[in-house]
Amino acid sequence: MKFICEKNKLQEAIFTAQKAITGKSTMSILEGILLIAKDNELTLIGSDIDLSIETKIKVDVIEEGSIVVDSKLFGELIKKLPPFEVQISTIPNNSIELICQKSKAVLKYKNSDEFPMIPKINENIIFSIPQRVLKSMIKGTIFATAQDEIRPILTGVKFEINNNKLNLVALDGLRLALRSENIDNDNTINAVIPGKTLNEVSKIIEDSDDKINITFTPNHILFNLGNTKIISRLLEGEFINYNSIIPDEYNLKVIVKRNEFLDCLERASLMAKDGNTNLVKLDIKDDIMVITSDSQLGKAREEVNIIMQGEPLKIAFNARFLIDVFKVMEEEEIILELTSNVSPCIIKNKDKNNCTYLVLPVRFIEN
Amino acid sequence: MKFICEKNKLQEAIFTAQKAITGKSTMSILEGILLIAKDNELTLIGSDIDLSIETKIKVDVIEEGSIVVDSKLFGELIKKLPPFEVQISTIPNNSIELICQKSKAVLKYKNSDEFPMIPKINENIIFSIPQRVLKSMIKGTIFATAQDEIRPILTGVKFEINNNKLNLVALDGLRLALRSENIDNDNTINAVIPGKTLNEVSKIIEDSDDKINITFTPNHILFNLGNTKIISRLLEGEFINYNSIIPDEYNLKVIVKRNEFLDCLERASLMAKDGNTNLVKLDIKDDIMVITSDSQLGKAREEVNIIMQGEPLKIAFNARFLIDVFKVMEEEEIILELTSNVSPCIIKNKDKNNCTYLVLPVRFIEN
Repeated sequence: MKFICEKNKLQEAIFTAQKAITGKSTMSILEGILLIAKDNELTLIGSDIDLSIETKIKVDVIEEGSIVVDSKLFGELIKKLPPFEVQISTIPNNSIELICQKSKAVLKYKNSDEFPMIPKINENIIFSIPQRVLKSMIKGTIFATAQDEIRPILTGVKFEINNNKLNLVALDGLRLALRSENIDNDNTINAVIPGKTLNEVSKIIEDSDDKINITFTPNHILFNLGNTKIISRLLEGEFINYNSIIPDEYNLKVIVKRNEFLDCLERASLMAKDGNTNLVKLDIKDDIMVITSDSQLGKAREEVNIIMQGEPLKIAFNARFLIDVFKVMEEEEIILELTSNVSPCIIKNKDKNNCTYLVLPVRFIEN
Repeated sequence: MKFICEKNKLQEAIFTAQKAITGKSTMSILEGILLIAKDNELTLIGSDIDLSIETKIKVDVIEEGSIVVDSKLFGELIKKLPPFEVQISTIPNNSIELICQKSKAVLKYKNSDEFPMIPKINENIIFSIPQRVLKSMIKGTIFATAQDEIRPILTGVKFEINNNKLNLVALDGLRLALRSENIDNDNTINAVIPGKTLNEVSKIIEDSDDKINITFTPNHILFNLGNTKIISRLLEGEFINYNSIIPDEYNLKVIVKRNEFLDCLERASLMAKDGNTNLVKLDIKDDIMVITSDSQLGKAREEVNIIMQGEPLKIAFNARFLIDVFKVMEEEEIILELTSNVSPCIIKNKDKNNCTYLVLPVRFIEN
């Protein structure tokens, strides 16, 4: 194998493929990055079995071939080279030689046939979505995935396509996040993508209107950005029928200013961190919401002006759950729909109907 | 105690005083910040006994008094308040009440008489130095302090004033850093300041020509920035007579370009990290320096053009020690003075004679 390429392009490609390399695998070959030089293209693949990232750059291939090199060392070395052309070639003793101006380095490589096969996916049924929109949908749901493995399916985000609509749903038993967008696709698809995959996807995609193509197979999802493909295993199992959890009636509707409410919650939660309960109480009446917290650390009392329709209510929450939701929402005016102090609270935008959040209250004994 | 002050000014003052609070003390009172409201000034003091930071801001004192509040909680709460006036007052049950617009919080406080006394220092003999200069001198020496406590005196930086010159010196047994500046003071002073203190000092002082006043007592040093005073214990013990270590003769003088040499060293050190030796070899002849490294991980070979006067030399170093020096030096052309492959290497600016670095070589067996 022998090729010549620009240092900066190579560095960027390594950085992308490395996002799949966790270093947590028991297979040491997966600490490596697979390089395939062919047809004047270099393909770089990083993988942790569940998630693989493949990216291609134009290079000048002098001799075709494929090898696996240690991803960390190779990445650091390329990063520290001066910004000129690099020549990379295999030499005897399972080594590759890198030459860039007057710098020369020799690294060990492993045979590429030890590297696990990346699933081949036939991209015949795809749907497209602007990268910016997908990024916002991931950010708006991923925080609500379960962080423990008690029910593995809940560590993922459900992708649901139905009637030209894409829904992303995450829930962990105490809260639920649902983001929706209209898309131009009339297939019906249900799949649960690991949270870890979506985390990496949202780091790679950009805040642009450029489209990303998505293909589902029974066991995998493929995100295709043109030069970069991200392939992930799907999570197996039955996702909770979330529609049955979301109530569609309520007794009290409250409109709050997002930033003001968020600031109040954050201050109140400082005094609620004692004993990990993070309990804040909301007392809603006469178009005022009073937020209080009280622990060994101290007390807080905050007051926000609201617009309310319905009966006064006293209700308590884990402040963290409300803060998580208010941090990812985008509109300035937010609606809370409440029924009783033991019923879920629904949180929505005032204008754009593209998200629904549900947070369960915490029961408490009135002092 | 009762006072009213601007949120932003208070936040900044807490941030400064907190730099002395390590949370590592066994005295729980030292997790607190001492607030003294008097004469329309609020004094904030943080301390870990060895190091204390005192800062003053103008406030509107309604009732004088002093208390200690938990530094972390108080700091986070003030930070999250809206940018308006805050009223802070003591209330029953050893509590203080903070009111800012419609936000109210209650925190526990401790009596200020539990807080250790900060040494009173009579500022009758001072010397002054621009903050920018002191910052650069600290940065140029602190990296060479010992990181272990085997010889505690070496964890500090020696301040030496003699003949209107200030020297800062640090050494750890394998390398030495010396920075000098002319000052307008004809006293003779020798004191060793803990590295930790100087670390905090360099975070607080700015890259400006504003002066900082420094006062020494037999056991303490005081850095006075006007509104902020930093008081630190000195280290006890005899500092090594560093002058006797620095050779003044050499057989080979080499001039290198700083950035080019640094890049080469960093690449070569990537291949030298195996087994923690970090060994790089320099082969100096015919106005070329060849830098090589070789380990289980791979090999590197770098070449830099140099100007040399003297005999060719092969010598090896711990790459980290050279990199540390070249990172803090400021000129683009640097002089290395070498004698043999077992003698120290002296590193200086080509033009400005304000620093001397010494790095011991590593013995190696030629392949």
